[in-house]
Amino acid sequence: MNLANHQYRLAARPMGMPKRSDWNYAEEPVREPGEGEFLVKVLQISLDPAMRGWVNAGRSYMPPVGIGEVMRALAAGRVIESKNPNFAVGDHVYGGLGVQEYALSNGQGLSKVDTRVAPLPKYLSVLGMPGMTAYFGLLDTGAPQAGNTVVVSAAAGAVGSVVGQIARIKGCRAVGIAGGAQKCQYLTGELGFDAAIDYKNEDVTAGLRKHCPQGIDVYFDNVGGDILDAVLAQINRGARIVICGGISQYNNTGPIKGPTNYLSLLVNRATMKGMLVTDFMDRYPQAAREMAGWMAAGKLKSREDIVEGLQNFPEALLKLFTGENFGKLILKVADS
Amino acid sequence: MNLANHQYRLAARPMGMPKRSDWNYAEEPVREPGEGEFLVKVLQISLDPAMRGWVNAGRSYMPPVGIGEVMRALAAGRVIESKNPNFAVGDHVYGGLGVQEYALSNGQGLSKVDTRVAPLPKYLSVLGMPGMTAYFGLLDTGAPQAGNTVVVSAAAGAVGSVVGQIARIKGCRAVGIAGGAQKCQYLTGELGFDAAIDYKNEDVTAGLRKHCPQGIDVYFDNVGGDILDAVLAQINRGARIVICGGISQYNNTGPIKGPTNYLSLLVNRATMKGMLVTDFMDRYPQAAREMAGWMAAGKLKSREDIVEGLQNFPEALLKLFTGENFGKLILKVADS
Repeated sequence: MNLANHQYRLAARPMGMPKRSDWNYAEEPVREPGEGEFLVKVLQISLDPAMRGWVNAGRSYMPPVGIGEVMRALAAGRVIESKNPNFAVGDHVYGGLGVQEYALSNGQGLSKVDTRVAPLPKYLSVLGMPGMTAYFGLLDTGAPQAGNTVVVSAAAGAVGSVVGQIARIKGCRAVGIAGGAQKCQYLTGELGFDAAIDYKNEDVTAGLRKHCPQGIDVYFDNVGGDILDAVLAQINRGARIVICGGISQYNNTGPIKGPTNYLSLLVNRATMKGMLVTDFMDRYPQAAREMAGWMAAGKLKSREDIVEGLQNFPEALLKLFTGENFGKLILKVADS
Repeated sequence: MNLANHQYRLAARPMGMPKRSDWNYAEEPVREPGEGEFLVKVLQISLDPAMRGWVNAGRSYMPPVGIGEVMRALAAGRVIESKNPNFAVGDHVYGGLGVQEYALSNGQGLSKVDTRVAPLPKYLSVLGMPGMTAYFGLLDTGAPQAGNTVVVSAAAGAVGSVVGQIARIKGCRAVGIAGGAQKCQYLTGELGFDAAIDYKNEDVTAGLRKHCPQGIDVYFDNVGGDILDAVLAQINRGARIVICGGISQYNNTGPIKGPTNYLSLLVNRATMKGMLVTDFMDRYPQAAREMAGWMAAGKLKSREDIVEGLQNFPEALLKLFTGENFGKLILKVADS
């Protein structure tokens, strides 16, 4: 075996939107797996907003990707060579494989996925990190009660679309905020959201007032910025705001826009709480079983936005921040 | 009886710092108490940061004071005439009596206080609303564990000074942020805080780094603004931030400064929660008993800053916002 591994390595810490020159497209030979190791051929790479945070310097929930290192990414692939008894050639795996064509692993942080239960892209979306984020962020951190009004931003995205559908399953009113008529139509027409607000063409404050006549009990925030402020002004007493992300602020070169209306937390005795999906890792299997059940029952749908070709990584990633992607953004590296 | 009642009525909604012209110093005759009513001679008026919010228009946790109405205030006084069997002449009472010399009441919202147990000013401070705010805000909303580091801002104020002392009683490290060397000396020298940071003369970020070597587990916020941001940058995983007030922002004429570092909540899976003391009203008596016990044991001290003369209300109130007051700010209207 004499394979060349193409990779994207971090060349410079991005200022604002990541540029192509922030990445280095490298090639290195694939090393043979050692004892206990196995070789994965990467098939599909998950492109996620969190990746923007991983390339910033400084303290966060995990160490930043180092300059010169292969860019960190969740991905799914197929085992093509193995000296590990737990992973056989042909097994499909999901985990932090990185932005590259091949990854060596000892199995740590990888889980096996069964493509007979669901096609591979679903393991990067509903059954993967985005789906788990939606499930635990909404149900554990947001703690909605039946009859509550749940608002979610980036609602047509991989996380937000699942949040709204689970809210509906739990008997809540689900209101999504997304950019553009097409995404809003998808939310109400295909996913069963009660209402959608097109932040690119509508006044969000007016939209919330119209579509949340009972106020807002749970807000699942993926975006921060002005939308967070608009929601804060309309929360109910005891409301829960789940801080899952702040994509509107990730590429700021100036200071982050903090929530001007945060004193609404005081007035309404409300809670704003951050969540990270990895804290719930020991409960993923149970959640995945429940989500797979909802998928089978037609209650939980998802959509993937697949870009082909590893070499397109720098441009594909930007689709997340321009709002150009529609559904879970996946970079397809190989067919099988 | 032919008494004249002097009052401060709201003349205009203040823009920024309240000016004298925002108030109307009025006089009206005192009406005789009707059946079930009693007349209170107001002795001491509590001046509190929350009063600034009560004169703003718009939705909040209680309706705003109307233009032309007597300014809302907590106060203590003595019953001088009564047609209510539950309140006798000579009884001392505490509650929303307003910024005036005399108040008629049917007893609703007033509680009797015993000046043999503690002098009257203590019922406006440790045993009154500020003390209850500290007690429930710290113990219920902040939920500190022994060994935690608790930081409190406006630490020499009526609420903050009690927060720090209760934190110590509960086995926590108490770090206070206050303005000026004298207040900081008071915190560590007299009240037993572990450390104090003088935000007027020290870099708060550096001070927190020095005095919170194990990070910050609970932050009791009375001020908002830059200090909230400095704390957010140094919170521990699972930290609790109690939003009790935001006095640095109350007189802004421009937009409120929201917490730029709020995404630290996500990184640290931390919680920011608003609290209002009135939600705990049914537990005040139990809390007051416990606090009185701590006072008797010398573990809980307080200091009052008493300004004399009802007519000085407009200027006295401003001391809260300039940081000029030192201890619970009280406007003394009459001796007895």
